[in-house]
Order: sequence, then structure tokens, then C-alpha cells
Amino acid sequence: MYRCLQSCLPKVHHEFTSWRHLSAVQSKISKFESILGKEAVSTKEAIRMQYARDEGHLLPHPPTVVLLPKTVEQVSAILRVCNEEIIPVVPYGTGTGLEGGSVSLEDCVCLSTTAIEGGICELNEADFDVSVRPSVTRKELNAFIRDTGLFFPVDPGADASLCGMVATSASGTNAVRYGTMKENVRNLEVVLADGSIVHTRGERGRPRKSAAGYDLTGLFTGSEGTLGIITKAVLRLHPRPQAQSVALCHFPTVADAVNSVVETMQMAVPIARIEFLDEVQVAACNKYSHIELQEQPTLALEFHGQTVAEVEQQAKTVGEICTSNNGSAFQWATEPEQMDKLWTARHHAYYAAVAMRTGAAGFITDVCVPISKLAETIVQTRNDLDATGLKGAIVGHVGDGNFHVTIPVFEENEEEMKMVHAFSDRLVRRALSVGGTCTGEHGIGVGKIHYLEEEFGAAGLQTMKMIKKALDPNNILNPGKIFA
Amino acid sequence: MYRCLQSCLPKVHHEFTSWRHLSAVQSKISKFESILGKEAVSTKEAIRMQYARDEGHLLPHPPTVVLLPKTVEQVSAILRVCNEEIIPVVPYGTGTGLEGGSVSLEDCVCLSTTAIEGGICELNEADFDVSVRPSVTRKELNAFIRDTGLFFPVDPGADASLCGMVATSASGTNAVRYGTMKENVRNLEVVLADGSIVHTRGERGRPRKSAAGYDLTGLFTGSEGTLGIITKAVLRLHPRPQAQSVALCHFPTVADAVNSVVETMQMAVPIARIEFLDEVQVAACNKYSHIELQEQPTLALEFHGQTVAEVEQQAKTVGEICTSNNGSAFQWATEPEQMDKLWTARHHAYYAAVAMRTGAAGFITDVCVPISKLAETIVQTRNDLDATGLKGAIVGHVGDGNFHVTIPVFEENEEEMKMVHAFSDRLVRRALSVGGTCTGEHGIGVGKIHYLEEEFGAAGLQTMKMIKKALDPNNILNPGKIFA
Repeated sequence: MYRCLQSCLPKVHHEFTSWRHLSAVQSKISKFESILGKEAVSTKEAIRMQYARDEGHLLPHPPTVVLLPKTVEQVSAILRVCNEEIIPVVPYGTGTGLEGGSVSLEDCVCLSTTAIEGGICELNEADFDVSVRPSVTRKELNAFIRDTGLFFPVDPGADASLCGMVATSASGTNAVRYGTMKENVRNLEVVLADGSIVHTRGERGRPRKSAAGYDLTGLFTGSEGTLGIITKAVLRLHPRPQAQSVALCHFPTVADAVNSVVETMQMAVPIARIEFLDEVQVAACNKYSHIELQEQPTLALEFHGQTVAEVEQQAKTVGEICTSNNGSAFQWATEPEQMDKLWTARHHAYYAAVAMRTGAAGFITDVCVPISKLAETIVQTRNDLDATGLKGAIVGHVGDGNFHVTIPVFEENEEEMKMVHAFSDRLVRRALSVGGTCTGEHGIGVGKIHYLEEEFGAAGLQTMKMIKKALDPNNILNPGKIFA
Repeated sequence: MYRCLQSCLPKVHHEFTSWRHLSAVQSKISKFESILGKEAVSTKEAIRMQYARDEGHLLPHPPTVVLLPKTVEQVSAILRVCNEEIIPVVPYGTGTGLEGGSVSLEDCVCLSTTAIEGGICELNEADFDVSVRPSVTRKELNAFIRDTGLFFPVDPGADASLCGMVATSASGTNAVRYGTMKENVRNLEVVLADGSIVHTRGERGRPRKSAAGYDLTGLFTGSEGTLGIITKAVLRLHPRPQAQSVALCHFPTVADAVNSVVETMQMAVPIARIEFLDEVQVAACNKYSHIELQEQPTLALEFHGQTVAEVEQQAKTVGEICTSNNGSAFQWATEPEQMDKLWTARHHAYYAAVAMRTGAAGFITDVCVPISKLAETIVQTRNDLDATGLKGAIVGHVGDGNFHVTIPVFEENEEEMKMVHAFSDRLVRRALSVGGTCTGEHGIGVGKIHYLEEEFGAAGLQTMKMIKKALDPNNILNPGKIFA
């Protein structure tokens, strides 16, 4: 899965300034040691290789040195040195990204954020918020607050660092009801390129809303480490639903399934999850997760409410919509174990799809379109995929208009990779042509850089670059990501 | 209401560059005429006075010239000229702001956005979105889409321009369920200081979510005309609830009422509106709007749902909470006329409070605190107000932790004004000390400038200034607003 797609590796072109001093990082190692202590500075091959990759399809490229600061003041001190010496810094959380956002591209410092001490710093149950350091993952947080009646809903497939999820503006299966990271961050502590420590809502701020000043919280959310390093996040929590139920529904065609989603959204049912798996994906999940679903286009649905009656009402409405679109009767998962098994299988959909070809690597796409364009976009994508002869699985958070195609690939096969890239290009352009976006949740990283201008236009891209240049004039923060 | 509080007028200090050429605007009038046509360029005293004020408490200060562009290309051409000549430009929508955000401070161009043609450009019912030009107000939009089953929920007191509402990050009574402008904008067309036209989500983009690039939409939302002029907004619509009900509940004390709100939020009831009016505000509304409410601390509640049962369940839960906090039995407004009358009275609360003293001007505050700090903050504020001897009314969107104090003032009375400002200062600091913000929805404008550094710290403020400088290096866009 980690082998190289040479064609994905961008030329790191420095339009802001040139930092390419091959000896710069090496020459500062003793300085880093004096800031962090020797044990937190590593140039060992094995350690560097641990921080060389994410879960996407880029060549592992080890950083020159891995730094493990324990405090925000240490992060600040490191950045001051790197900014003076114009040394590139790649922030690294759990390394679970898919587009190369935390991958080292050349001679650089890898700043691992997960050693920063503090973990879960402050839980305000009454205000539904919690502040966490980068070491805390989404599953750890939810385990910690299990007894409070609250939960954090954003759930990308991986058990990612929550601060890393802020950096990539992650989402997942619950976003249709609870929003993405964008809607679930109240404040951030960020260290800028010059070492200054910024609190995007002030040092203590955690109001539900504010009209004071520029929305720095929103600006850093999804900035993929290119504007600052997130060292703490105040996150919004949600009450755990008092009642919930999970159902599966199978459909004869992709269009029937997707049309059911579209109608559900248009009826404004506050559904918690509405996930689509096409027949190829269902078959892959059956095999990988040892489940036995009917191998047809399928929706996995979850209903949340404060009362059983509310949940039943939602299920009744959606059931009627599905029936009118030729859906099967709902198969209910009622026991917590059944629900867990189903959603675990869904979260493993990517690995299941990759496993369809023994020894293959995974290539995954990620687009998002307006709901009204979803059925035609998925049908065209399935037809396109079939016409190429590639074996790919379609899965998605379709309530948001967001879906993925996972293609198991042999990257040595140049002909095949050319086809895969051409297919992915056509998919992105299909999404953009109907008012969609080149990425719903994986981010730009390295893999989507060449679509940014197409999506935002020259003026939009230029505006982003002006902001980057203002906050990181030496281009030391995660250079070569988002922008070419 | 429009008389001057001299102490509020900031010294417009230009740290970026100096544009103070007294003749610069005059010398370009023929240029503006050649771009717009003579009829769209006005230096007449009467017209200039129309654009000299907002609804807050700043001295009317007429701009040098009022420009009424009809197209975004004309806006772009004007800004190019102003940027070259370093002429300040104050964007002006409906002029319904309260903190002086659209008020001219000195020799400048007032660019009225409401003549831009197009109105409601594109309604996508299936995707719940609509794109509007600045001429469209919130009430006009809701009248236009009345038959679609959709509505736009954000409702500041005034019938403001929707694009202006984006610029100030407005909210209102529905924000507790439907969010503020921040959560309800999908794309913006913005003209930057250099005349470039940016689409924050690309020219056609309107996905429900995206992880592509920096969140420019969020950055311009609430930037109060200091980063660019908003010429079009793609807004998110919501399904009109199938069932709704409105109730009033009276309480013996402020603390009882506010504690009911806090518990309602903590029980995660998806309440649509939960508005607090203290006894002084209720008495003022009774007199001003010819209604007859019990003159006690009062909550006005609105429940939305897809079924009557859902609404009844919400009302039952909240009813029990209110009873346990010594609230009266709910008084129901069931007929649309009754509901309208009640919410109109609520929307006129500011005018009602000002009318408590004949001939007085209005001074209104706006803070927002975490829910757990709301009861103590409001109680302390009422005690503080009473101790000063000022007659003020407290009202607020308390489900968000947001509340206002309206004080009718005689601005000629220096002693009184000193007391009012000192009270307002103490209120803001009380809010900040418990993790709140100096403005929940009115914005910084001119009136709140001196709190920005206190709220965000030097590094946070500096970050905002770096962004401002990057996008508007000559400081021509609404100078003297947000930043001193």
C-alpha cells in the first residue's frame, strides 16, 4: 500500500523563498537537542522510517530528523529556529491521512505532535466541550467521556489524532447530522511559523458563537499544517442519543439506492448516518469482515433521537422512501454488538476493497457533489469504472454528497496506473462540473494539488497563497502541500 | 438614536499606509462617472446623509461620494481605481448594523452594494441552497421561497441585506437550532481591494462539505468589509418545520429562567428559539407593541419538528424543566397571527427598550458566554445595572449564551454616558473572564475595537492584521473598523 506512485510526487517548487540548504537541518540538531533534550531528537533510520509515510499512496520519504516536543513552548522554540534557518517542518500526528499531507518530501524536520503532554486537558460537561492535545485520538476521547452521556461524532475511518483531524478538516459517517470538524471546533492553540502562540478564540474562549474579528478557527481548520501547528483544540461534544437504531436496505440498482438518499435529505429527516456501499464494496466487506450481506447496492442507516418514538418516526419515513425506490425491507441491527460489527465493517471498507486483489496497493478517490447531482455522478462513475475494466468499489457518506472509489492497484503496472489516474481525473472533473469539490474530507495534501486552481480559479488560489505568504513568509510549514 | 457618542469615535490610525489625501476622492469622481454612469455617482448632501449612519450610536458622518454600481465588474473597476489612488472605501448594505461597521469615518467613497442587479440569482430547491445579491434582504428571500417548503432561518432584528449579514456574521433568535451565518453560507463572490473577483468555493461550487484548500468562505464571513466586498452569497436553506408551537413561561427570578435555559440545552432538546426577556424588557415590550405579558423574567420558546408528536415531546421535556425551576404553566400561542405578534414584539425589543425614556437614544451591548456561566453572568449584570441606577432591559438569545442590555441614554449627559460606558466595559470583561466573547452577533465595527486584543491576545490580533495586510495592503477597505 505504501509503494511509490512516482507520478504523484510533486516537484517542490518554492515560489516564496528557497530553503534548500541540504546541511541546514543537520547543522541544527544540537540546537534541537538543547531545546528538547537528546531523547526527543532522533536521526535513527528506524524512527525516521516510522514518520516517513501516511496511509495513502506516496513513496515513504524519511525526514532528516524526528523531533518529539513535550510542550507548546518547545514547539515554539523549534519553529523559531527553523524559521531563522529556513528549515522546512512537517507536522505529524497519527499519520493516518490519505493524500500525503504529513509526508516528508525532502530534507526536513518532522515535528511529531503526539508527545505533547496534557492529553485531555479540560472537560466542560455542562457546556458540551473538551480541550485536547494532539496525542488524543477520537476513540480515546470517546472512551474517556463514555460515562458523561456525551460523545464526539466525527469519525474518519482511522483512529486519528483529533488535532490532526482539525488540520485536515476530517469528517466521516456522522457528518450528515453532526457536521464535519469545521462545525465542531470552538478554539485552537496554534504555533505559527515565527514561533508565536495563537489562540484562535482567545486563551480561555469557548463561546457557542462569536462575531468578534476574523474566524481564525475556521482558517486553521483544514489548513493541513501549512499555516501553523495545532497544539490544542477545544472541541464541541454532542449528547449521546437516548434512542438509536441501525438498518440495512438493499436495492436492485445504484440509482435506486442513491435516489432514496436524495429524497431522505430532501425530506429533512435528521438521519445520523446514511452510508452507501455498491455491490462490489458489499462483496469485499463480506469477505474481509466475515459478514453476510446481500451483494447488492446497499444503504446502511442509523437513526438517532431523544425518544424511541422519534427514532421510529424517522425510520418509518425513510422506510417508505426506500420502498418507493424498490428497496428491500429494512434488516435491523438492534443489539450493540450487531451495530458495532456493522459499523466496524463499514470503517474497514477501504481495507476490504484493497484486499480484493492479493498484494495490491490501494488507490482511493474522494469527491463531493450537491445532493441533486449525486445519483447521476455515481452512476456515471460506475459506468466509467466498468468501461475501463478496473475493479473498484464505491462507498460513501452519501447524505453529504460525498463518495469514494477504492481501486486495488499494482503500481508497477504503468499501463494500469495511467488508467487509474485518468479515471480519477475524470471523476474529479465530473464532480467540479456539477458544483462539487475535488475532496470532501481527505484534503489536498500532495495528491490533489493540481485540482486546486481548477476548483477555485486563479483569483481564489492566489488569495490562499497571499494568506500563506503572510503567515509563513519563509514557506517553512509543510511546504509542497496544498500548493505546488 | 443617531446622535454622537464622541468617545466612541476612534482615531483612524493607519499603521499599514497613509491614504489621507483630502482631494483624492474628489479628483476621481469623473473617473467613477465614466465607470458607472453619472446617475450612479452622487455627491448630493441628501444622498450622502442617507449613507452616513447605521442603527447604532455613532455620529452621522457623510461619505464624500456615494457610488451605486450595478455589476460586480463595476465594483471591481471602482476598487482598482481606489486601490491605485489609496482611497478608502466603505461598503454599505442596508445600514442596519449596530456597531458602526458601515459608517463613514472621514473622506471616503461609500460603495452601496444594494444596486447590484440580479436579486435572487439561482434557487436550488433540491439542494436547499440559493444565491443572492446584496439587494436581497432576509424577509424578501423568505417571501420569495414561501411556497417551496424551505426557509432561511437567520433573523437579526432588522430586515438586513443577506450579504451584509454575511459580512457581520449575523445571527438572531433561530441560531440555537439552525446556526449563525457562519453555518449557513456555501459560497461567496467577493471583490478584493485590488479588484480581483474571488469565489470562495469556486465559481460553481456549492457542496455541503469540502476539505479543499483554506476556508475562505469562513474568513470573509464576519470580516465586516475589511477584506473584500461581498457581491453574492450562496446560502443554505432549511426545510420549514411541518409542526411548530410557541409558548411563554414566566419565572419569579432571572436565575430561575436562565437555569431553565441551561438545563434545556444540557438535555439537548433541539429547540428552535429560546429567548429571555427580563421584567424590564417585558414591560417595555408590553407598552411598545401593545401586548399584555406578565411583567416577570420570561422565556419565549419555539419548538420545531417534522411531526406534532415530536414537537409535543420537546415541549413536554422543556415544560418539566421550567416547572422544576418555578416557571409558570406554558401560555401557548397557537394561531400564526399570535405567533407573529409575539415574535414581532421580540424583534422590536430594542426599540421598545429605547422608548422607555422619551427622546432618548439607544445604547446596546452584546456579549456571549458559555452556557454554564450564563445564569451568574446575567444575574451579576442585573445587579450591576441596578447598582448604577441606570434603567436597562436585558434580552437575549440565551440558548447560545448570547444576551444584550439596552439602555436608553441622553448622550448630552456626560456623567450618565461615563456610567454607561463603564457598565458596558465591566460587562465585556465579565464575559471574557468566563470564556466568553465581546460580541455574539453585532460585530466589532468601531464600537468594540478596544476589546479585540483583550479577547484574542497580542498574537491573535497580530495574526488578523497580517491577513488584513496581505489582502488589503493599502488599507482601503473599511479602514478604522475591527482594527484601530
